[in-house]
Amino acid sequence: MLELAGVAVEAVSVGGVETCIQLPGLGLCFDMGVCPRRAIRHPLVLFTHAHVDHMAGVVHHCATRHMQGMAPPTYVMPARNAEAFQDMLAVWRRLDGSDLPCRVVPLEAGGSFEIRPGLVATAHPTIHRVVSQGYVLTERRYKLRPELAGLPGPELAARRAAGERLTVEVAGPLVAFTGDSRIEVIERVEDFRRARLLIMEVTFLDERVSVARTREKGHIHLDEVIECAELFQNEAILLTHLSARYGAAEGRRIVQRRLPPSLRDRVTLLVEEREAPERRPAP
Amino acid sequence: MLELAGVAVEAVSVGGVETCIQLPGLGLCFDMGVCPRRAIRHPLVLFTHAHVDHMAGVVHHCATRHMQGMAPPTYVMPARNAEAFQDMLAVWRRLDGSDLPCRVVPLEAGGSFEIRPGLVATAHPTIHRVVSQGYVLTERRYKLRPELAGLPGPELAARRAAGERLTVEVAGPLVAFTGDSRIEVIERVEDFRRARLLIMEVTFLDERVSVARTREKGHIHLDEVIECAELFQNEAILLTHLSARYGAAEGRRIVQRRLPPSLRDRVTLLVEEREAPERRPAP
Repeated sequence: MLELAGVAVEAVSVGGVETCIQLPGLGLCFDMGVCPRRAIRHPLVLFTHAHVDHMAGVVHHCATRHMQGMAPPTYVMPARNAEAFQDMLAVWRRLDGSDLPCRVVPLEAGGSFEIRPGLVATAHPTIHRVVSQGYVLTERRYKLRPELAGLPGPELAARRAAGERLTVEVAGPLVAFTGDSRIEVIERVEDFRRARLLIMEVTFLDERVSVARTREKGHIHLDEVIECAELFQNEAILLTHLSARYGAAEGRRIVQRRLPPSLRDRVTLLVEEREAPERRPAP
Repeated sequence: MLELAGVAVEAVSVGGVETCIQLPGLGLCFDMGVCPRRAIRHPLVLFTHAHVDHMAGVVHHCATRHMQGMAPPTYVMPARNAEAFQDMLAVWRRLDGSDLPCRVVPLEAGGSFEIRPGLVATAHPTIHRVVSQGYVLTERRYKLRPELAGLPGPELAARRAAGERLTVEVAGPLVAFTGDSRIEVIERVEDFRRARLLIMEVTFLDERVSVARTREKGHIHLDEVIECAELFQNEAILLTHLSARYGAAEGRRIVQRRLPPSLRDRVTLLVEEREAPERRPAP
């Protein structure tokens, strides 16, 4: 469990294998390539695209919530994936002999989904090998009008009683998630750069896989992050989707060595501490 | 990782949530409700039935093996599930935009599947709420004819050179897996009782869920195991599919207290050490 820019994050993400980013404080997940046990309690999943390693945990999520008597979950996804997703659920209903109750929300890129009053998810098109979109979660809250700062409590209470409006609404991007994408989304979507916490994929870290090859696959290379380092205004950045070819210590070492100081202190690389990267077994 | 009757077992199994029993020495899994990272390397899964908690990890298994350049896996299942299973794969191919290469083997109850020369899986009908079957893995190997036991090596070599057959084929049930079923399968299928290692579901352990209610759900209650204790000839028995209502220590205590001595030392209850049973979150 991480806490980044005040946001709790519980994440598994290995490039091509599995990605599920839980935000327990907000009761939601980004993507669900697998469904970790603790993700079952979150009633909302925002899917970036329909690759197996980002979506295949959903059936387990839906069925287990139903079995445990929890409310039907909501699945938000690119509008063009919704029909095949419903077909997939329909086949699982045949296999499982159960209802798999849930709400499927097709969301066009540019569209918004209200998570709860004061918290909205907006979909932004991203650039991958298939239809894909990232999400920005925008929080609306109220804070004291700046000109009233420093006034004593009784004075504020009197003004409120007299009908004066003491607060002003502030809206700001709280968390952004790129999903799998080429780097251009960072230039294109201002809220990705401004979100307090940016969760961004970086699949490859050095010359063992070239930038060109990374881009062909629709992913981001650390070289590209370094090149546009000055764009990021985020308080914290979590790098996910690291290729399984990097060990935990190795990945951390490369990122720490290569990132410019302006980024280094704000960046956390998501790595697996539990075990060495999976080696391909002998055939 | 357990070793029971000489067989290595790596298992996760919680009733209604997830079951995947890996037999790493044999390169296969029974069921795949989830696909633990280490199960990806096994190229064969024998499915007992199509409930989500026994099958939903298969897409992750298939896609990750393909992505890592491993050979297409083989999925053996009740013949009546094969068509819907193929439909499910077809929808995932649409969603994922990939091939998901694999071999689907529909196996009628009573039928056999050769895992490799000398090792055969036989399907036996079981009794659950949906079409279901258990498996017995039978090993064929050769041992010295009993009347030759104790002869010196040169004498044996001379007999072999003279064309005498020194060995006799022995076949025996090595591992059996009931999957989800009522207890009657133990009476009906001799090889379940004779397998060196029996992996059997026992979902409920005491009066908090009655035998009648357990049977309605197509499961086994510990009371029923105790009642037919004298039937089991197995060298080791692994009890799986324990309901999430039991904690690890509690489950072990009940089983140790209630089983007759003739069973107690041969039985291992599969429990989760990692965390307390999942509590239902507030709505």
